[in-house]
Amino acid sequence: SNRPTITALDGRFRASLGAQIQYDIGGALQGDRTAGAPRVNEFGQNLRRGRLFFGFQYDDFLLNVTPEFGGSPDGTATLYEANLNWSPVKPLQLTVGYYKPYFGLADSMSSNDFLFLERPSIMEVARNITAGDGRASVGGRWAASRWFASGYLTGDSYGASSTNQTTSGQTGFAGRVAGRPYADADADLHLGLTGSYAFDLRRQAGTPTAEGQTLRLRDRPEWRAGDASTRLVDTGALAADGVATWGPELGLRYRSFMLQGEYHQINVQQAQATGSPRPDLTFQGGYVEASYVLTGETRRYSTSSAAFGRPSPARPVTDGGWGAWEMMARWSLIDLDDKVTRGRSQASTGGVYGGRQEVVGLGLSWYPTNYLRFMLDWNIVNVDRRNAAGTQQIGDRFHTLGLRTQMAF
Amino acid sequence: SNRPTITALDGRFRASLGAQIQYDIGGALQGDRTAGAPRVNEFGQNLRRGRLFFGFQYDDFLLNVTPEFGGSPDGTATLYEANLNWSPVKPLQLTVGYYKPYFGLADSMSSNDFLFLERPSIMEVARNITAGDGRASVGGRWAASRWFASGYLTGDSYGASSTNQTTSGQTGFAGRVAGRPYADADADLHLGLTGSYAFDLRRQAGTPTAEGQTLRLRDRPEWRAGDASTRLVDTGALAADGVATWGPELGLRYRSFMLQGEYHQINVQQAQATGSPRPDLTFQGGYVEASYVLTGETRRYSTSSAAFGRPSPARPVTDGGWGAWEMMARWSLIDLDDKVTRGRSQASTGGVYGGRQEVVGLGLSWYPTNYLRFMLDWNIVNVDRRNAAGTQQIGDRFHTLGLRTQMAF
Amino acid sequence: SNRPTITALDGRFRASLGAQIQYDIGGALQGDRTAGAPRVNEFGQNLRRGRLFFGFQYDDFLLNVTPEFGGSPDGTATLYEANLNWSPVKPLQLTVGYYKPYFGLADSMSSNDFLFLERPSIMEVARNITAGDGRASVGGRWAASRWFASGYLTGDSYGASSTNQTTSGQTGFAGRVAGRPYADADADLHLGLTGSYAFDLRRQAGTPTAEGQTLRLRDRPEWRAGDASTRLVDTGALAADGVATWGPELGLRYRSFMLQGEYHQINVQQAQATGSPRPDLTFQGGYVEASYVLTGETRRYSTSSAAFGRPSPARPVTDGGWGAWEMMARWSLIDLDDKVTRGRSQASTGGVYGGRQEVVGLGLSWYPTNYLRFMLDWNIVNVDRRNAAGTQQIGDRFHTLGLRTQMAF
Repeated sequence: SNRPTITALDGRFRASLGAQIQYDIGGALQGDRTAGAPRVNEFGQNLRRGRLFFGFQYDDFLLNVTPEFGGSPDGTATLYEANLNWSPVKPLQLTVGYYKPYFGLADSMSSNDFLFLERPSIMEVARNITAGDGRASVGGRWAASRWFASGYLTGDSYGASSTNQTTSGQTGFAGRVAGRPYADADADLHLGLTGSYAFDLRRQAGTPTAEGQTLRLRDRPEWRAGDASTRLVDTGALAADGVATWGPELGLRYRSFMLQGEYHQINVQQAQATGSPRPDLTFQGGYVEASYVLTGETRRYSTSSAAFGRPSPARPVTDGGWGAWEMMARWSLIDLDDKVTRGRSQASTGGVYGGRQEVVGLGLSWYPTNYLRFMLDWNIVNVDRRNAAGTQQIGDRFHTLGLRTQMAF
Repeated sequence: SNRPTITALDGRFRASLGAQIQYDIGGALQGDRTAGAPRVNEFGQNLRRGRLFFGFQYDDFLLNVTPEFGGSPDGTATLYEANLNWSPVKPLQLTVGYYKPYFGLADSMSSNDFLFLERPSIMEVARNITAGDGRASVGGRWAASRWFASGYLTGDSYGASSTNQTTSGQTGFAGRVAGRPYADADADLHLGLTGSYAFDLRRQAGTPTAEGQTLRLRDRPEWRAGDASTRLVDTGALAADGVATWGPELGLRYRSFMLQGEYHQINVQQAQATGSPRPDLTFQGGYVEASYVLTGETRRYSTSSAAFGRPSPARPVTDGGWGAWEMMARWSLIDLDDKVTRGRSQASTGGVYGGRQEVVGLGLSWYPTNYLRFMLDWNIVNVDRRNAAGTQQIGDRFHTLGLRTQMAF
Repeated sequence: SNRPTITALDGRFRASLGAQIQYDIGGALQGDRTAGAPRVNEFGQNLRRGRLFFGFQYDDFLLNVTPEFGGSPDGTATLYEANLNWSPVKPLQLTVGYYKPYFGLADSMSSNDFLFLERPSIMEVARNITAGDGRASVGGRWAASRWFASGYLTGDSYGASSTNQTTSGQTGFAGRVAGRPYADADADLHLGLTGSYAFDLRRQAGTPTAEGQTLRLRDRPEWRAGDASTRLVDTGALAADGVATWGPELGLRYRSFMLQGEYHQINVQQAQATGSPRPDLTFQGGYVEASYVLTGETRRYSTSSAAFGRPSPARPVTDGGWGAWEMMARWSLIDLDDKVTRGRSQASTGGVYGGRQEVVGLGLSWYPTNYLRFMLDWNIVNVDRRNAAGTQQIGDRFHTLGLRTQMAF
């Protein structure tokens, strides 16, 4: 990292300071709206991420505290992470506190390095069951040159108890293994597998049954620049006893070209109720995304996170060059429909019309220098979703545009 | 700036850290209260500003992130600014993100340098239409030795979408030109002109008409130390299609004496409604304020902001001196009444009884050192305002006292 | 302090940066619950403290700003302190702003040095009347080698006006004197006395009488790791005209053994009401706690705060040692019952069934290095409390466990 750092004279103590700003401007072109579909707001801006990083390291111990002033939407000061790390031997790091456990390929990538403004919806939904930002966790990772393994016991997210004090929290596990069977100067091949299990879900006072464990899976349409609130795919609160997810990862790089993809399946054990069908539910999704750096730089593989990084411009504008230019494309799918029959209500089958969302995106990035980035995204979003009665289409098809200005140290 | 800074060895990278604290103690002497007037609380304290400044600069690029822990009243952590700056040539600075666009003479002055605890009400009201703190903006300024020009396209303020997600935001423009036709060691003459236009106002769900664009102009009585909530001038929510403001600026300094003043006019195009009169409304106000530094220092002119600064003590107490002492006086007026006739309801004419507030103030400042300041303010507030029916006086006349302790690096 | 510090070349200016993280994991074993007692949640985690310290010093002037991201429960960014300090002569420090005035022995100790996870309940209740974290205060302390005196005029806590704008605030006084009549390398004897008086209580809009001054005394069961909301002792809102507290302090250290204890009495002058008895109320409590450092280090006495510190490990793990190990025990009592007769309602006598809580605790601490600490607490909580009618037991007896991971610079 290129963060400014103060090192004490004996070299054992280091304090570092960093910042990350992602400022988004964007809009949606909805055209003729489907009768039951929500209106997606036209234009707006948002501070997607606004983080200040404070690090304190003494020998093998590291303390991280990262306030967050961005959000979806912005407006609240919160905490991205606060944790203690210990590296007793070199490729092993044990961590306790609030942080983001490793989960899948797309979420192991730094948010500075994303190919698109937002994670694929299936990643966002799957990671937030037991992992995601600011999750109370204890665990560790082993990050060697050719393989990676991580495992975390996880609890609530930061602040979850402040809004729902009277109910007990969530506990789960998130694990990931990955390998890089082929790696040379020109190419990398990445294979991985991520799984998670929530064996105790957070209880919600009174919904849907008194103090029952519930789960809600939902996401925004892979775009939050102008409207951070509208979610078109949403299962609503499901009474559930447990949830498991699993998914394979594939990544490959050849010189300036990179391609990665994942599939994730989410298995929900619904809580049984007398007189109602409550079958187990299976949701799924996946994505494939590709990048080509026009100016010849590469997305280098980070062994510490088992994921690809962003290109570092060979000729930054501050040295008289044009920086790095990159083109991206993505196809992404999430299907939150299960055990439903069109025209029949979801209650009759015990399934859920959570909706099926497909997003096709094109992107262009400019990296004037190593710490600066401009991203332009154009997404075509297609949501097919029925109302709970199964009789009306409440999804829609629209385009979104987003321009991100990013500066990170 | 005298902020502590870390500079990397090659001299191209700098990180800086600063802080600003304004802690106010004060009270109001209301005497016999007018029957319909609100009670102004007697005594209290408030952290008016509590900011931490983080700056990261690489060559011509600068990232600013400034958390804010003060407020009116204090109690919420928020963001004062987060933005990216680029200076391709020396006196030009382009900025994108959340920040305070240049608007008028009084608001271009640093809050550390204010003559009184609060801005004149007309400035507070006029600047917050399209500018003000933490405004999403893109634009730039050209700040030469003898003239200054700035222009910004502006959107919502930081956090506006978190409280009102379902409606679309505001867009506008704020511009300023200023010149210093005369400048020598003894004297400065400043002339300026500021204008703004909001061509799209923020929609308010359901008020006053469903999803209509509304505007609310109001301010506290130029005093927030003991009571940060009571606003005696207030137009209420006006259904409006657009708003324009314009105002001339005058400033002059002769040795230790400084005088500045502004006039601003606000023109509101009310939204038309069948059967009701909805004339265009004009509100206005202005102020004149003067300062005399008893110990002989001067309020030096800052060319980067085209505004006057605070005196820097020649003999600080830390070097055995008495610091700098300064006396101030101000007259300030805001008139939010328009198209109304006393005794008749505002609905009958389509005008508004927003109220007319006049404040006369005297102040004394002590600067023990360059980074420390104590301010004592005594204001006489006189509000003339009718209720919506036009039949009852709901304004009042009272005195306020405020003592600010300020430390800033 | 061992915080990283930047010192300017002339040595007059210093900026420092620090952090404190206390991350708690814990649970309660409630067994068979008393019919009327609240359910204490079983297991959870919490960021008890998450602070970033920013200090700016120039000659004798010091500015402190400390954002806080922890809490009970965590989830809100707030301010621990923001204040200005001046030391005109060496052992005198004058302070204005938001901070924690010195109050009692247990609260003068740094939260990094606590013997148990939470303060004794009597200390938590007594300190929060006029003192406690982030209290608006002006005053000073004289901290010599053998004696200590402090006095503060205090107002509201940070943010109090943001939730209750329409009412006026609290004013009070908190003072403390302490001496160390015996002190050598092997032993310290500490004697002290703390008192406070709230001569104006915060008004609560409409409760219990319109805009009346009210006071509420309550605390959690000296454990917040898994459930930061449940308070088993609670007086409810008392209409009161004033409150006084006083309490003696005793502390002694012999080599690696330390023992300290306090008693505090709280005297409430109830507001009179026609037709209802409103006697003065007296609440009280105390604690005794002891520590023994198994590895031979000592809890050194801090003259600047007149309280004991934590042991500094002689052989830290980073130098191949085992760190420091410490055992602790505590007995703590708070009695918020007064002027009540079992079986009769509290309204009939004008007293209050606030409850009586006794906690017996055992603890173990490991300090791998000077900045790192792990604490394990086992508490047996016994609450005896009647409902307002005096007819039903609503207290309970249960065990709590808590494990704290602490890192502080």
